[in-house]
Amino acid sequence: MKKSTPKVIKGIQQPNSINLQTIRKRQQQRKTKTVDEFVKGILAGNRVVLSQAITLIESNKSAHQTKAQAIINACLPHAGKSFRLGITGTPGVGKSTFIEKFGQHIIQKEKQIAVLAVDPTSQISKGSILGDKTRMTELSSNENAFIRPSPAGDSLGGVARKTRESIILCEAAGFDFIIIETVGVGQSEIAVHSMVDFFLLLLLPGAGDELQGIKRGIVEMADLIAFNKADGENLQKAKIARRDYRNALHMFPPKPSGWTATATICSGLSGMGIEDIWINIDKYAKQTLDNQFFKQNRQQQAQYWLHETIKNHLYRLFYDNDAIKNELSEVEHKIKNGALSPFQGAEELLKLI
Amino acid sequence: MKKSTPKVIKGIQQPNSINLQTIRKRQQQRKTKTVDEFVKGILAGNRVVLSQAITLIESNKSAHQTKAQAIINACLPHAGKSFRLGITGTPGVGKSTFIEKFGQHIIQKEKQIAVLAVDPTSQISKGSILGDKTRMTELSSNENAFIRPSPAGDSLGGVARKTRESIILCEAAGFDFIIIETVGVGQSEIAVHSMVDFFLLLLLPGAGDELQGIKRGIVEMADLIAFNKADGENLQKAKIARRDYRNALHMFPPKPSGWTATATICSGLSGMGIEDIWINIDKYAKQTLDNQFFKQNRQQQAQYWLHETIKNHLYRLFYDNDAIKNELSEVEHKIKNGALSPFQGAEELLKLI
Repeated sequence: MKKSTPKVIKGIQQPNSINLQTIRKRQQQRKTKTVDEFVKGILAGNRVVLSQAITLIESNKSAHQTKAQAIINACLPHAGKSFRLGITGTPGVGKSTFIEKFGQHIIQKEKQIAVLAVDPTSQISKGSILGDKTRMTELSSNENAFIRPSPAGDSLGGVARKTRESIILCEAAGFDFIIIETVGVGQSEIAVHSMVDFFLLLLLPGAGDELQGIKRGIVEMADLIAFNKADGENLQKAKIARRDYRNALHMFPPKPSGWTATATICSGLSGMGIEDIWINIDKYAKQTLDNQFFKQNRQQQAQYWLHETIKNHLYRLFYDNDAIKNELSEVEHKIKNGALSPFQGAEELLKLI
Repeated sequence: MKKSTPKVIKGIQQPNSINLQTIRKRQQQRKTKTVDEFVKGILAGNRVVLSQAITLIESNKSAHQTKAQAIINACLPHAGKSFRLGITGTPGVGKSTFIEKFGQHIIQKEKQIAVLAVDPTSQISKGSILGDKTRMTELSSNENAFIRPSPAGDSLGGVARKTRESIILCEAAGFDFIIIETVGVGQSEIAVHSMVDFFLLLLLPGAGDELQGIKRGIVEMADLIAFNKADGENLQKAKIARRDYRNALHMFPPKPSGWTATATICSGLSGMGIEDIWINIDKYAKQTLDNQFFKQNRQQQAQYWLHETIKNHLYRLFYDNDAIKNELSEVEHKIKNGALSPFQGAEELLKLI
């Protein structure tokens, strides 16, 4: 079979050229936008500029990073004035449908919402959350919402840092309700828990297996557990689960916030229970603003990220060291076989640096 | 007032001199005991030698540390063949009375038990746990028991390390059931949880306030919750608490061990429920030996202590650095005020090293 060659039709060649020029010009503009222009755009609430700035944050190029840090620096004084909500739940629990409905609900409360994701699994699962903006068609076309998919192909530390920096820019752009979405299967919840004010756990109602795939400790972190998809034949199961969890949750010590976690039911599909969740969050916000926990928690979170960043850096320096790399598996092997105590093993390795 | 001078009475001077000589000779013997002599004594089950070796472990003198490490090294091949039980609970829950009774109970099962403590609070509270051996009068005089008070005046990391090394020596000396006691109010439970096979939480029965003073997360770590002091008018309250917690505990995801935590009641005073706790522990031991978790967990714990020790060392290198010390509070202050992002703060500090 003979390969067809593209035909040059004079009439449409001209417009094509213009389009190409326009695109190049736009690329040029984007490239040469100064830090000031970025900051001005963000503070004016321009979401195209906001999006471009987040792309800079997500870039691993050194020049982009320098620019991103300068932008973040300038935005910092304008940030912090939002409520940050963390939402977690295993794939299939209906997070997207829930956020679609919940987002629209709180926009009616005159909130401007931004939705970000922490998803270190996306490099494996090829973007399991927020990967497809079109899943939230109505919310993503709402002028009071900004949805940013998860940055793929990075470590948890990297993703978490980028998300936390993106929050700053979103807040500076005037978004006063930030939703951070994550999947309840890994370590990412600890990262998300350390950057939000309120932690919502979505579960599926079922016969005792609500927690399939949820890691231990995540239930402890939750400020509210919502049994989603509580419609049709699931409704009865959801009500039973809500009762059982309400009984269980008050068996656990109170949180430092003074808030006692509770359980509720909802349907991202019908919207049932969404207002109840909003009421809980609003109550929490008022309570923690009153008792100063809100502010203290934010300050503690900032300290956490300072020391977490230092820790990760020190780790990298140590474990990326060639001498350590060569010896580590040998030492680990000896410890596994009981030929060396962990403390002696550590000393042997530390001698190398 | 004239200061009285000690009178020299000829008749009793002679015996005193002999006593002094004996003491000096003993001190001399202790000082000059070789590593081989220590190891031989420990392996023979000599508890005086075991005690002296643990004192070496607890010493912060460099020469003592070198000797201690050599002893541990020689004991390692003979260690690991015990069951390690962690017991936690706030002051007042009756830990000593419980251990006194429980210890004697399992000695009847032909166990040789050693009781150690991780108590980083002892530097403040002047030894709140095991501080007074005489609290366990019967157990401490039993030839099948060895009780070692908590080493005072050290950091959690230090205490934890010393306790973990003491476990090795106790095991080499033939003790096949090790109890690690701690208080349920701080970070020490994570350390203890990472060195035991089974984690028992003692609580007081009460009207919903069983968890006063217990940190969040500790309940999650427990393999068994026992409501102690379940006697007299407390019995009914304890039974209610047991029922509530049994319902609550199965709401949480299964542990990696495959074991589902449960709740029980007991009385350290009367001995009621002690056998039931033993049955639970025995069942757990059999189950986790069968499903290989027991061995895997020990190996993971050893890896944990390897990396934990490295981490602590790297931290010390960084945070004890004078340049860092000078800048840290300034950076923390800026972050607190929102003038600096935590990531920028970390970079500023890391530049200094």
